[in-house]
Amino acid sequence: MKKRYRNGEIWDFEHEIGLLRNRDVILGLDGGTTSTVCICMPNLPFSDPFPDPLPVLARAVAGCSNHNSVGETAARETLEQVMADALLKSGSNRSAVRAVCLAVSGVNHSTDELRIMNWLREIFPTHVKLYVQNDAVAALASGTMGKLHGCVLIAGTGTIAYGFMEDGRQARAAGAGPVLGDWGSGYGIAAQALTAIIRAYDGRGPVTILSSNILQTLDLSSPDELIGWTYADPSWARIAALVPVVVSCAEAGDQVACEILQDSVEELALSVKAVVQRLGLCGEGVTFGNITFDSPIVPALFILTWTMYIAFRWKSFFPLVMVGGVLEANERWDIGKEVVNHISKSYPGVLPIRPKVEPAVGAALLGWNFFMKESRKEAYKR
Amino acid sequence: MKKRYRNGEIWDFEHEIGLLRNRDVILGLDGGTTSTVCICMPNLPFSDPFPDPLPVLARAVAGCSNHNSVGETAARETLEQVMADALLKSGSNRSAVRAVCLAVSGVNHSTDELRIMNWLREIFPTHVKLYVQNDAVAALASGTMGKLHGCVLIAGTGTIAYGFMEDGRQARAAGAGPVLGDWGSGYGIAAQALTAIIRAYDGRGPVTILSSNILQTLDLSSPDELIGWTYADPSWARIAALVPVVVSCAEAGDQVACEILQDSVEELALSVKAVVQRLGLCGEGVTFGNITFDSPIVPALFILTWTMYIAFRWKSFFPLVMVGGVLEANERWDIGKEVVNHISKSYPGVLPIRPKVEPAVGAALLGWNFFMKESRKEAYKR
Repeated sequence: MKKRYRNGEIWDFEHEIGLLRNRDVILGLDGGTTSTVCICMPNLPFSDPFPDPLPVLARAVAGCSNHNSVGETAARETLEQVMADALLKSGSNRSAVRAVCLAVSGVNHSTDELRIMNWLREIFPTHVKLYVQNDAVAALASGTMGKLHGCVLIAGTGTIAYGFMEDGRQARAAGAGPVLGDWGSGYGIAAQALTAIIRAYDGRGPVTILSSNILQTLDLSSPDELIGWTYADPSWARIAALVPVVVSCAEAGDQVACEILQDSVEELALSVKAVVQRLGLCGEGVTFGNITFDSPIVPALFILTWTMYIAFRWKSFFPLVMVGGVLEANERWDIGKEVVNHISKSYPGVLPIRPKVEPAVGAALLGWNFFMKESRKEAYKR
Repeated sequence: MKKRYRNGEIWDFEHEIGLLRNRDVILGLDGGTTSTVCICMPNLPFSDPFPDPLPVLARAVAGCSNHNSVGETAARETLEQVMADALLKSGSNRSAVRAVCLAVSGVNHSTDELRIMNWLREIFPTHVKLYVQNDAVAALASGTMGKLHGCVLIAGTGTIAYGFMEDGRQARAAGAGPVLGDWGSGYGIAAQALTAIIRAYDGRGPVTILSSNILQTLDLSSPDELIGWTYADPSWARIAALVPVVVSCAEAGDQVACEILQDSVEELALSVKAVVQRLGLCGEGVTFGNITFDSPIVPALFILTWTMYIAFRWKSFFPLVMVGGVLEANERWDIGKEVVNHISKSYPGVLPIRPKVEPAVGAALLGWNFFMKESRKEAYKR
């Protein structure tokens, strides 16, 4: 194992405390633009289903590890430090690690993967299995308990839909940022609400309670002041933080707020449908949407045939893992529920999942899955 | 006159060359985010119409003078330097100046006006009349030859509609920046085109020739690369520069490009209509749009009555000055013409004007108009 002492004492604890518990571990990392989480899990014996709750040994948190945001060196140091912290907390060290699954935002090409892989290889011995993925993969795995099959819809400040097939094919939709039209996102919803205030003010749009409610939230006295407010700090998260106000206005019956949320629902559903369609995740993609019935017997027969067809065709069902603030259940206006309703009109086989574990645990489970598959392959060769 | 030597030798030329020609002059400035233009015009005797072409003595150009972009000090120095340059070129000096009309972007409140006014007062003797305005005012005046009545629609990188009444009332619509929904602007058109490429690529939208044409223009090989391209430099002007490609795609019959331009037309027309409505620029705002006719005699009579009504009601006509790259005539898909058609359905009294002179000349004419009015008032008092 090569030793790296770039920033001094990251791994010093290994000499000081030694290995407290003699058991193999798996590391799962979820690296986002806001924070980075590392989970240390025991290397479970081959078991299906997983024990509930999952035996997490340690959890460590650090800042941003997206190399596009903080640069290569800072991203590396953050990732290395958070792994060391998780191992230290769990009383383990690198010699106990069997596999590492690193899922970080900003990994979009095989070149990104390779670069991170090479650097991980400098930290861990050669027998440790290493997997580098996009953070969307960890989000999917957090809902499917480590299986790479189905679709994940992330809708927080930004939005992206990712689809994965067991044969390795994958597809994505949206996730290109606000300039390139991620309108279903938290940023998209809030920016449309701010726009609606300006339009109501200058006579281009209808009156809305968004005006008073959002201005009050931001402690501004006139819509004019919104211009200065947006110019002062163009951060998307700051604007997206207004989503709860938009939802409460919609729940209070405001027509403009309702239309904005309805648009968001359609945009988010469209992203998922585009991915499902391209991958053929739902079999042939038969749709209910445009079929009209002339007699009550016909739909009854149709539904019966359809149910049988579905029952014999498991492929038509697919998990949809839903992650992010925008999709969390609200009291009356539930964006996530509406998105699923919308998708199920085209793809009745959609199985919505709201993950019970965080993405870093998903990454650890994914790492465990990969590791088990490779171990089995290697055992078979011997 | 107070003397200011903040940056040394701005006004030194006055001592060196003296006054070459003994005539009164007016200065007009148009200060934008891209550049600042200063025009030096002779103080014309009371005359209507103005001589054609207008006797412009000198024209000087400098960089950005929007205090929001470059800061107070740099904006002041730019404005002072460009006025000195124009006077030097025209063989005049400050003692020949009768009036200065400074129309700069970023002037939105009376506090902005007052601040600039105080600083101008440090440069010019007390008998010089000083006027500070928003740059939209100069654009209107460039079309109305110095009269402050009507509406101006500016659509370049951004967009704004301003309306002015002779009684001093004014109203604006849009102009709040891209976050707050200036969708009819050059930036808006181009951002929608880029979005359409991403949507076609990930399966959310229809195929469009925008993809190949824009990628070729930007020398990119895949829509994926657009994400990096937009993140690399978020300047609005860089994105807005793609408008001609969108227009050429629409002219080639591309449905997606046509819809984007049609949206832009509706948005721009809506801004103007909102301003006209709020100010009552077009009298009572009677509309043609939704009237249906049952017999051919009825419309004939209706049109006759209407024409007479209009003829006796000059107030129903209003000038619409149209400025900016988006509104310039294109070969087949003429956005400006479509905007006027759209507005005239609601306000048949719209009189579109494409200015023959630049906004800085508009500012000079405006300065001249103000100056003449005040001089007449003062003469009346004596």
